[in-house]
Amino acid sequence: MAQRRQITGFSNPTVKFLRSLREKKHRKAAGKFLAEGLRLLTDARECGHLPETLVMATGREPHPLLDRLEADVQASGGDLIECDTEILAKITGKDNPQAVAAVFAEFDTSLASIDCDAAGIWLVAQALRDPGNLGTMLRTGDAVGAGGLILLDDCADPFSVEAVRASMGAVFTQQIAQARWEEFLPWLRAGKGQLVAASLREAVPYRGAPYAAPCFVMVGNESRGLPEAYEAACDLRVTMPMKGRADSLNAAVAAAVLAYEVLDTLG
Amino acid sequence: MAQRRQITGFSNPTVKFLRSLREKKHRKAAGKFLAEGLRLLTDARECGHLPETLVMATGREPHPLLDRLEADVQASGGDLIECDTEILAKITGKDNPQAVAAVFAEFDTSLASIDCDAAGIWLVAQALRDPGNLGTMLRTGDAVGAGGLILLDDCADPFSVEAVRASMGAVFTQQIAQARWEEFLPWLRAGKGQLVAASLREAVPYRGAPYAAPCFVMVGNESRGLPEAYEAACDLRVTMPMKGRADSLNAAVAAAVLAYEVLDTLG
Repeated sequence: MAQRRQITGFSNPTVKFLRSLREKKHRKAAGKFLAEGLRLLTDARECGHLPETLVMATGREPHPLLDRLEADVQASGGDLIECDTEILAKITGKDNPQAVAAVFAEFDTSLASIDCDAAGIWLVAQALRDPGNLGTMLRTGDAVGAGGLILLDDCADPFSVEAVRASMGAVFTQQIAQARWEEFLPWLRAGKGQLVAASLREAVPYRGAPYAAPCFVMVGNESRGLPEAYEAACDLRVTMPMKGRADSLNAAVAAAVLAYEVLDTLG
Repeated sequence: MAQRRQITGFSNPTVKFLRSLREKKHRKAAGKFLAEGLRLLTDARECGHLPETLVMATGREPHPLLDRLEADVQASGGDLIECDTEILAKITGKDNPQAVAAVFAEFDTSLASIDCDAAGIWLVAQALRDPGNLGTMLRTGDAVGAGGLILLDDCADPFSVEAVRASMGAVFTQQIAQARWEEFLPWLRAGKGQLVAASLREAVPYRGAPYAAPCFVMVGNESRGLPEAYEAACDLRVTMPMKGRADSLNAAVAAAVLAYEVLDTLG
């Protein structure tokens, strides 16, 4: 079996480093992020993402998928660490941590890395502040077979522990790009992408609207929604029924209801 | 204008009491909960829910809706309090608190309070642990014109600050009931409610499935999904396309995609 380092102290520099990755500035400085859970790490492995460091709880249940992961990490020159659950809880910030956590190098999130013809649906989030919403959008994107998620302007960090957790592994299956609107729009217009948003202005019913691939489903900030200019630049504005007092849905919910409608049209 | 008490100290007993309502045990002991924000409190007022206590930031912007709220709270014998934003931040646990917060008496959440023929759609959550998901389901329920949300087994508290916040006021427009499955199922079967869940077992496509009012859309716990027996008891099991690696959606997202499909069928 693979060779593992034992870590027993909270003040160990590796523990300190791993913990520091829960903060954005340290993630950005290191270019690395944390993910946890055997299922998620197995999804990552099967999508070609091996962690640089694998941290396992002493006294964990043995599992063939974990053996496989360990072997692959070792073969690729990665670091294998064992520590008790208290230290693992400290690293992940969770009272009942999963038996395994890992450190990955952040991916390339430039717009240039996206081939918009690679999928029929793409999700776009503008100034989304809640990492849970962002992770949920990644998860939804995976479910509808989207190519990925494009983050416009100042969004939450897709590599935060909360976003990675909420994505349920989709952070590894979906492409992620980060761009300013001023950069995104010309990029989109250079291709044949259709930009769609829910809107209250000059919109058609979302059900049966003329969606076309590659379709970019865009939602805006949780409090402010999309800037008017962004809505105006859309190829298609759609409305969803609002039967109650509210005039909007949660951003991740709106993206999902729209994306499933687009999926039904495009197949 | 209305008479207001000024509170200047963090150690004031009222401040301590208000803060304590962020914890479930104190909410249950007092039978009260916190809500914040002028828009949400106005929604509450317009739905017939006046707070027992209204807390306003000194130096807030004047607003006719706040004047109206203040007058109504005073007329109903409620308590009006003014304090600075630091204290308000302490009470709501938010760094940038809204200019107004309030205390409401918790509602009757017995199943007996629900008239299932009052709406064509009802949402049902089983052992949902995330108060944000729960609040999001309330918000979605409002949007699709649902009658309310039924919480089965051990769910997060719908009166938690996080759930109330995520509901965007729908906690006041949607009926809420809490029940064990053993109590819910006979109640449902005594009426003509149709129980629907997403499932991987013997299910029909969710799109165009034979939904019938009153339709109860049920989702399960974030990690475990619905117990098999609960799925088996459903009148209709539906599948949603899962094009990627994941085999499930976020619970609040699944509820929303299904609920919008039901809305399209039932109108």
